[in-house]
Amino acid sequence: MHVEVTQLHAFCLDHLLRSGVDRTDAELMTDVLITTDTWGVFTHGIKSLGNYLKRLEGGGLQKKGNPVVTAEGPAWAQIDGGSSLGMTTSTVAMDKAVEKARETGIGFVGVRNSCHFGAAGYYAVRAAKQGLIGICMANDIPGVAAPDSKGAVLGTNPFAYAIPTGDEQPIFLDIATSAAAGGKVIVAAFRGDPIPEEWAQDPDGLPTTDPHFYPLTGALQAMAQHKGYGIALMIEILSATLTGAAMTHQVVSWSQDDPSLPTGHGAAFIAIDVASMMDPGQFRARLDALRTEIRAAPAKEALKEVRLPGDREWKHRENALKHGITLPDHVAASVRSLAEERNLPLGDYFG
Amino acid sequence: MHVEVTQLHAFCLDHLLRSGVDRTDAELMTDVLITTDTWGVFTHGIKSLGNYLKRLEGGGLQKKGNPVVTAEGPAWAQIDGGSSLGMTTSTVAMDKAVEKARETGIGFVGVRNSCHFGAAGYYAVRAAKQGLIGICMANDIPGVAAPDSKGAVLGTNPFAYAIPTGDEQPIFLDIATSAAAGGKVIVAAFRGDPIPEEWAQDPDGLPTTDPHFYPLTGALQAMAQHKGYGIALMIEILSATLTGAAMTHQVVSWSQDDPSLPTGHGAAFIAIDVASMMDPGQFRARLDALRTEIRAAPAKEALKEVRLPGDREWKHRENALKHGITLPDHVAASVRSLAEERNLPLGDYFG
Repeated sequence: MHVEVTQLHAFCLDHLLRSGVDRTDAELMTDVLITTDTWGVFTHGIKSLGNYLKRLEGGGLQKKGNPVVTAEGPAWAQIDGGSSLGMTTSTVAMDKAVEKARETGIGFVGVRNSCHFGAAGYYAVRAAKQGLIGICMANDIPGVAAPDSKGAVLGTNPFAYAIPTGDEQPIFLDIATSAAAGGKVIVAAFRGDPIPEEWAQDPDGLPTTDPHFYPLTGALQAMAQHKGYGIALMIEILSATLTGAAMTHQVVSWSQDDPSLPTGHGAAFIAIDVASMMDPGQFRARLDALRTEIRAAPAKEALKEVRLPGDREWKHRENALKHGITLPDHVAASVRSLAEERNLPLGDYFG
Repeated sequence: MHVEVTQLHAFCLDHLLRSGVDRTDAELMTDVLITTDTWGVFTHGIKSLGNYLKRLEGGGLQKKGNPVVTAEGPAWAQIDGGSSLGMTTSTVAMDKAVEKARETGIGFVGVRNSCHFGAAGYYAVRAAKQGLIGICMANDIPGVAAPDSKGAVLGTNPFAYAIPTGDEQPIFLDIATSAAAGGKVIVAAFRGDPIPEEWAQDPDGLPTTDPHFYPLTGALQAMAQHKGYGIALMIEILSATLTGAAMTHQVVSWSQDDPSLPTGHGAAFIAIDVASMMDPGQFRARLDALRTEIRAAPAKEALKEVRLPGDREWKHRENALKHGITLPDHVAASVRSLAEERNLPLGDYFG
């Protein structure tokens, strides 16, 4: 299924507006999801729309967002999302972190009563587009084992950062702290493919190539064993313990659980104001030297080049905006079934 | 070789004082190195003393430290280490981050003209012992490949954090962003052991089990491929690009290069003041609930328990303080040759 970005955008926005979602929230969510698809990160784009819609219609998510700053100081704030869309609360939170950082050099904003916010990288990039270094992290329902545990103890707790470059798109990384994102295991199950042994474990805690144990009885393995587990725990503490959000098993599954329930996710946003600490021109020159040096490093194979984090995603986006996107099978299936369920003929959008 | 902690401490301190190192610097460095050995992290303890001494005596490191704050704002500072011991500069930097965080909620301190600082976890724990969340990171000479590069493009760029618990020792993680620390590959070469295929690559960029390519012609692989590479790049940018420190190949090897040269390492320290953002009693209770839940999770094997980051290190330390430390062969060899080179009979310390 090949679509134009504007078509996918209209399809997403229409679904949200027809569900009664406030236009501001709907436009923001559409931008988050479709930007993510243009990056080629299909596990976190339009594919998720159906589950968000269910919770919006079920009452677990508010159709008009209203995140509230509950407490703040010179370089920090705490925000209660009030079960607004995770996209709405996260955008307000990152912008608040940027505001604090511009005043003090660095800002920390903690969030509670949020929800799954899509791709963490979106919010980090949002800070970088304003000239600041952005960092974003969040917790989620447990789906990842500790190195010694049989079952899941922590979420895939994503981590993202973005660096403003001045001339090019921001350098950015957006990763799950599991060996692989849960969405990749679900795609393998959808396709009937086996998974690499280091991605997941079975109910006894043994490595498995069968993608079907996850998420119900098996668990993902942590990225680089104790290292990813340790980073995921830091994220849990900064995003949830310190913010008053739901922790670990208190979090409600945004995609599987009763859609009348708020999910209670937590998140943390950090912005660092380059301009407070160094002449921005000097920073850009130093960053450019680093960037150029790494890209010029000899690559393993003649056709490959050494890339920076985000290079692949921005190239994918450039291509998507020019030539459209070929949706992978699992995404196309989800778009088709959404259109069918909701009587919005596909031909009206992708004709 | 079995030693008491107090004996190892006296041995280390004496070497430094006899080299003319200022007592304050010498005591701090001794505490960093010996604490690290008590944690069981033998790659970063007394074993490194000989190389630090060479640079102190060669002039690349100052015998009396004098790190200077060159610029600061409400929540940040930049420090020029002036080639003081990395331990001295890092301690001043983390304490400054703590001071800023107490005033504003979060503090960022960047460091340039530092040197290899031992175990990053030491400084994160230092913040946690003052009741704050501590984060510490640093750059180093390139030793780690990008997923597509033939050779090294970034250092093992360590990352550490520590969380204050109130009752127990801090939760803490201290990791290299390479698949394995360079020191582990060097120990394998010392012992003639092969290394796992995912630790390092040969000069053609191919995985190897031979530890001898590193560090001269081969490179370490990044932790979890593009994930560790991406995190290492963030660390390079925060520690060096933003601080004015030496970047990548500009950094001088603290252990291999001409000891008359300053190494130029950069580092970054972040402190987050829990008490600014949440009642500390509430934070402790929430953290205790998280800690208890994870430790109670079913373990893979009957004899194993699910541990938190730092549990193993603190247990090792408790045992070391009570019963002494059995130094691994590669550490004992280094202690013996140091004593011999410098005519400090081992029997005077470990008799």
